[in-house]
Amino acid sequence: MKYRFKISIPNRIVIILFVFIALIRPIQLSGQEESEKAFFIKKLHEIALSKQMSYKWLSFLSEKIGGRIAGSPQSLAAVEFTHQVLDSLNTTRVWNQACQVNYWYRGEKEQGKIVNNSIIGNKDLQVVALGGSSATGQDGLTAEVIEVKSLDEAKALGARAKGKILFFSRAFNNGNVRTFNSYGESVDQRVFGPNTAAKLGAKACLVRSMTGKLDDIPHTGVTIFEENVKPIPSLAVSTNGAELLSSLIRQSKVELFLKTMCEDRGPKTSYSVIGEIKGSEKPNEIILVGGHLDSWDIGGGAHDDGAGCVHSMEVFYLLKQMNYKPKRTLRCVLFMNEENGLAGGKTYAEESTKAGEYHYAAIESDAGGFSPRGFGYDIDTTSLSKFSGFFAEWSGLLATYDLSIKKGGTGADIGPLRPQKGILFGLSPDSQRYFDFHHTEADRIEAVHPRELALGSAAMASLVYLLDQTP
Amino acid sequence: MKYRFKISIPNRIVIILFVFIALIRPIQLSGQEESEKAFFIKKLHEIALSKQMSYKWLSFLSEKIGGRIAGSPQSLAAVEFTHQVLDSLNTTRVWNQACQVNYWYRGEKEQGKIVNNSIIGNKDLQVVALGGSSATGQDGLTAEVIEVKSLDEAKALGARAKGKILFFSRAFNNGNVRTFNSYGESVDQRVFGPNTAAKLGAKACLVRSMTGKLDDIPHTGVTIFEENVKPIPSLAVSTNGAELLSSLIRQSKVELFLKTMCEDRGPKTSYSVIGEIKGSEKPNEIILVGGHLDSWDIGGGAHDDGAGCVHSMEVFYLLKQMNYKPKRTLRCVLFMNEENGLAGGKTYAEESTKAGEYHYAAIESDAGGFSPRGFGYDIDTTSLSKFSGFFAEWSGLLATYDLSIKKGGTGADIGPLRPQKGILFGLSPDSQRYFDFHHTEADRIEAVHPRELALGSAAMASLVYLLDQTP
Repeated sequence: MKYRFKISIPNRIVIILFVFIALIRPIQLSGQEESEKAFFIKKLHEIALSKQMSYKWLSFLSEKIGGRIAGSPQSLAAVEFTHQVLDSLNTTRVWNQACQVNYWYRGEKEQGKIVNNSIIGNKDLQVVALGGSSATGQDGLTAEVIEVKSLDEAKALGARAKGKILFFSRAFNNGNVRTFNSYGESVDQRVFGPNTAAKLGAKACLVRSMTGKLDDIPHTGVTIFEENVKPIPSLAVSTNGAELLSSLIRQSKVELFLKTMCEDRGPKTSYSVIGEIKGSEKPNEIILVGGHLDSWDIGGGAHDDGAGCVHSMEVFYLLKQMNYKPKRTLRCVLFMNEENGLAGGKTYAEESTKAGEYHYAAIESDAGGFSPRGFGYDIDTTSLSKFSGFFAEWSGLLATYDLSIKKGGTGADIGPLRPQKGILFGLSPDSQRYFDFHHTEADRIEAVHPRELALGSAAMASLVYLLDQTP
Repeated sequence: MKYRFKISIPNRIVIILFVFIALIRPIQLSGQEESEKAFFIKKLHEIALSKQMSYKWLSFLSEKIGGRIAGSPQSLAAVEFTHQVLDSLNTTRVWNQACQVNYWYRGEKEQGKIVNNSIIGNKDLQVVALGGSSATGQDGLTAEVIEVKSLDEAKALGARAKGKILFFSRAFNNGNVRTFNSYGESVDQRVFGPNTAAKLGAKACLVRSMTGKLDDIPHTGVTIFEENVKPIPSLAVSTNGAELLSSLIRQSKVELFLKTMCEDRGPKTSYSVIGEIKGSEKPNEIILVGGHLDSWDIGGGAHDDGAGCVHSMEVFYLLKQMNYKPKRTLRCVLFMNEENGLAGGKTYAEESTKAGEYHYAAIESDAGGFSPRGFGYDIDTTSLSKFSGFFAEWSGLLATYDLSIKKGGTGADIGPLRPQKGILFGLSPDSQRYFDFHHTEADRIEAVHPRELALGSAAMASLVYLLDQTP
């Protein structure tokens, strides 16, 4: 696209009009509450894009600190770093809220290899252990692979699974516009597949990585074993590796060598970080913004969920830049342990309810640092009428930024606050690139675009402002 | 973000519901035109995302053919390639429409260097010649730099500009949410700055690259000299280079060495490529989709505007996959010479009007291959009522995909069709990353995400379908 020559003259008219509007604005505004809100939201966006802090904070979090699984030294460095940042943002107070997490430790780099295959001989695969996996021991393990596409197909194997490596290979449905739907349709294999395999007596479990992209990057993530089930070594293989395996299994007997030295390092005390700005008029009504401070140990947790943390802190920064004094109490909560336990989110809600607090609203950012497309919301139906009257106004104001408000998912960490009957929101960034990086070595600052990130902060700050402005 | 455990049970219910709905759908549809349209649009998106052709075509166009400025051998290769693709897409006919272009040739790589500076001595700068620039000759030229921020500031220099290099250094306003606005506010420096400098007797002109990103990649683009003004050497410098220059100029006298061997190779015959599917009911009402086939000579013209070309061809591909027989005549037009002359767009409109044709609607994609956010539209006010009655329905159907329809820019190539009084649309992709690549070496296939690209095709195909369905 090149310059449209027709723009030059109209631009001057626009500038003249702008000066004219700027001159008459103070007079107009007294009678135009709507315009004041529109102006405030516009300024929030301008500041976010031109005086952004989030990208710098995220660089520190994802590259200087790096992957920060709950219980790790890095997770505590992240607690200290974000605490210091929140201290600088006009907060009334900042504190660390303790929670009990379990520290799963990956150990040395995993190995995966097709061995003695009649078609291709030996061939390395790109694998990572899943969080919750057990170790193979130093010698690794070798066994035949059986491929299944679902939990039901696995269960139907019965005794045939004994001593084998169960391979869950159902691919993402790339036809979904929203990639989170594809994830939701496939991820039962990773979360519950290893448990199913263990109950059948399988030696180990391999899962196709949770992405629709064909590449050599394996995706980790949590897997869950029932209390009475002994964990087995459980790994994810890259999609290219999974394609190769599926193809070989159709033609030959396939044996795999797998090795992981991961270990459960047991319970640790960790912390969610909370910054608060006391409300001037309704201090007992809390508006929360948050993300989760822990990430997986590989990569830098840039999109998941460093982005959500810096979005939330930047909401405070933007309101500070605007000299905005909130009527309600604002909290920025950076939750610990979303990835493998949700200890931070659960503890926060428990303590909040115990203290008799009321969260008027909570907004979580945990879907990446891409251009925001809007917000999903969720609320107890009995309380919906308290907010639904504002939706038309909010939608109108946010439509300027192509942001929608739709019933939908919000966030895992704020979910436990639902019984307080406030309104919950989740920031919805564009999801097309998210699963290229999710839970991988590639989730680093390079995968984040500064402007896209800043717009997420601006969107959240705009919604916080609108929520705070409600009577 | 991790798996939400609550999803597993509801998912099964959703699957059961889906099967149920699939079974009863044929009965329901007879009374539900709206649902049929929603279903058609959903399928278009599914096919685009799962059976995409656009990314493959774009790889060929941007990497096998490469940069394809009008008049170049590559531009004719692009004509041949896209002609062959359109031949394969159920078209009634495909033809090349001749137009007269001027072939500007870059020649050897440009040189730019700060010389004999009292602070940093000699220092290379990253520069590219602007399309329309004249050459410096083999020896290059050296002169003192004078910095200005605007055309008016340049004009005010008067005789002081004589023999100097005029440096236009006004930066992008990064505070704009829409980067095209920042471009519109700055690009007068590139388009008209060199002409202004030439009239003042300046030896050469240097322009800060048109991007808000600070890096070492210079951005080319067209510059225009009045007929009676002799072109001078005119180059763009990377933003980092521009920052350095601005800083040095505040502290010292700055001399620059510049060299470009570009040349005007004169008039050539080139072609726009047109594919047509004859309408079954209203063949005289044309719905056009298009982009421009030429690009700048550096980089691969992937976003600008290979994306628009493959979007447009993929509209035909998607409708073919759906076995859709259009009621109106559909045209895919890949315009030649948008970047430096608009010969293709002007010729197409002239010949169309001469032939008494009526373009009911035209949709151009020329703002990149990023996730679509909606469409801008433009129409002669006397004809608006013909279409405005459909906006609510279209907006409702497209809102599912977070696509809006707003009054706004459309496309340079279809602009000349406005007097036919149909409705003009421009695809509006997310603009945050566009000016990282625009008119540079970096505008290559790696800068394009396949899913984001496919969604642009699906959005355009959806709108074509909705337009074709109007009574």
